[in-house]
Amino acid sequence: LIEGLDPDDRAVLLEEVPAGVVNRLLTGMSPDERAMTTTLLGYPPQSAGRRMTPELVALSQPLTVGAAMEHVLEEGHDAETIYLMPVVGDGRYVVGVVSLRRLLVSDPTTPLTQVMSRPVMVQATDDQEHAAQVVRDNGMLAVPVVDAEDRLLGLFTVDDAMRVLEKEEDEDVAFSGATAPLRRPYLSVTVLRLMRVRVPWLLILLLAASLTVAVQDYFEETLDQVVALALFVPLLIGTGGNAGAQCATTVVRAMAVGDVRMRDLPRVVGREMTTGALVGIALAAVGFVPIGLFAGWDIAIVLGLALVATCVLATTAGSAIPMFARRVGVDPAVVSAPFITTVVDSTGLVIYFLIAQAVLGL
Amino acid sequence: LIEGLDPDDRAVLLEEVPAGVVNRLLTGMSPDERAMTTTLLGYPPQSAGRRMTPELVALSQPLTVGAAMEHVLEEGHDAETIYLMPVVGDGRYVVGVVSLRRLLVSDPTTPLTQVMSRPVMVQATDDQEHAAQVVRDNGMLAVPVVDAEDRLLGLFTVDDAMRVLEKEEDEDVAFSGATAPLRRPYLSVTVLRLMRVRVPWLLILLLAASLTVAVQDYFEETLDQVVALALFVPLLIGTGGNAGAQCATTVVRAMAVGDVRMRDLPRVVGREMTTGALVGIALAAVGFVPIGLFAGWDIAIVLGLALVATCVLATTAGSAIPMFARRVGVDPAVVSAPFITTVVDSTGLVIYFLIAQAVLGL
Repeated sequence: LIEGLDPDDRAVLLEEVPAGVVNRLLTGMSPDERAMTTTLLGYPPQSAGRRMTPELVALSQPLTVGAAMEHVLEEGHDAETIYLMPVVGDGRYVVGVVSLRRLLVSDPTTPLTQVMSRPVMVQATDDQEHAAQVVRDNGMLAVPVVDAEDRLLGLFTVDDAMRVLEKEEDEDVAFSGATAPLRRPYLSVTVLRLMRVRVPWLLILLLAASLTVAVQDYFEETLDQVVALALFVPLLIGTGGNAGAQCATTVVRAMAVGDVRMRDLPRVVGREMTTGALVGIALAAVGFVPIGLFAGWDIAIVLGLALVATCVLATTAGSAIPMFARRVGVDPAVVSAPFITTVVDSTGLVIYFLIAQAVLGL
Repeated sequence: LIEGLDPDDRAVLLEEVPAGVVNRLLTGMSPDERAMTTTLLGYPPQSAGRRMTPELVALSQPLTVGAAMEHVLEEGHDAETIYLMPVVGDGRYVVGVVSLRRLLVSDPTTPLTQVMSRPVMVQATDDQEHAAQVVRDNGMLAVPVVDAEDRLLGLFTVDDAMRVLEKEEDEDVAFSGATAPLRRPYLSVTVLRLMRVRVPWLLILLLAASLTVAVQDYFEETLDQVVALALFVPLLIGTGGNAGAQCATTVVRAMAVGDVRMRDLPRVVGREMTTGALVGIALAAVGFVPIGLFAGWDIAIVLGLALVATCVLATTAGSAIPMFARRVGVDPAVVSAPFITTVVDSTGLVIYFLIAQAVLGL
């Protein structure tokens, strides 16, 4: 059963079983297969090296197209794909890639070097997601995986790319809702498992939210004096949370697709603070008259200022926190909307009450 | 310029320019190219028919492998891919598919019908996302696109599948944060554009959040009598929002990947209500003693009950609303976390104050 799998799928499987079982499985393989699988297991988890297939057809640089075609037909039997083949020089350095289609339509006497194209490659230690993006962005069927010196190690194929991107999406989507990916079809997961996946995240958020209780307790006197302030607390922190969620979602996505890098941090935070201010001013302008008519003009002034301040705070946190998360090696998607919201909630309340005290002269 | 594009890319381009310009562009094409492009434009937007390529090599059922190979080499010049070819019978009905690799390794005298495999197909009117998922889930390089009677219309290729899935992910991620996809690299979008994308969503949410003001205003007497109740409002609605976000994220994702269908609605909502109750009980159990010590045991009872009720409410809304959205033809991701949160906020407050009145005898 195990021998029937491709070496890369086998490595993924072996990762998930205990070491004792792995050794027994490895013993059952032919020496060649065993060598391949243990090589794959030597790369870090989530690296391109773990998912690449070493079962490929490499073409030697001095060949002609005709000789290359013969080589493909002889050696291609066990290869995972023969539609894209690396061309290698001495010492297995990758010098190009060529598609089967190109070989088929070219004159058999043409030197291989004239029909091959410049290789797009990834390193075995690169992240799988990076390799998958390279495949997608270049519209390739496979990308050669090389070591630090550009020596050929394997191929990362388009079907692996799709599976990796699907899994990354599962994770990012789950994290964006402050939960964990289920990894199994929804209806086959028990209710108890659903609960166990969700409660830890809610407890962390609940702990963070208890800060809002402390803040309101601290400002209880202000609240007592102007009860109308309490009426707007859910609206204010809700809006701050939503503004933060929009910002975090956009920035996390921009990082995931590589549009934004660590060195862009000051620029991103600056842009988001400006956006937050503009958004806050727009909301305050729309809300001013209705709030003034309902609760009085002094409350409307407090709330307008608080909306602008909260939106700036929310977009600052929503852009800076995910970027710092990546810097310290945490997946930015983990510290997404719900966490930003919770941070913004308590800080926003402090600002709200301080503005109220200042404007209302309490 | 336009003629150099593949017909499917051309159709996507033509969709985005005014009708007058389209006609002028179509006039400039050769009759063949024009026929192809207008055919593609006849399918609904976002359908597989819009993205398929009609430039393919179809193999006739009675051919041998050798004759098929000859046909590929003669006719394959303009095809978008020759790695997967549909096999068609009379009237272009698809009877199978065969890979170039299979042709290459098979004996030239073998009948094509013996080497072809059962076709996995999509209809031209199917959603692009569905077609992309079929390609991904079957690990295929392309899938034949057929009409309602299984007649061959085109091929939906793996590079299109990856682009479609990427775009869908962009949209789902953006909607999950209550914003719209930018469609351009983050740093190339102006701050004004960022603001314009976000403000409409925030205004809708702000309008919905004004219900929380109305609810608190209605229960102002209760709030006045027990000021401690106000202290826990942000914590309670924050937790409800987070529980709803977890549920909505999971259910929206399960629908997107096809794990959950409309007919599963009662089952999904039932499971989520149970999960909500279990989650609420867990949170109430953890919070009971700290809240009791801080604010008194009667408040702790009120908050414990309110946490359970809010979590059930949140998971009910978080599962039912996205599913109803799909039924009425709205992308479930649009009514994601932030919208659920806002609905839960005001309803949760009503429940909170009603529980308080009952328990505290106000």
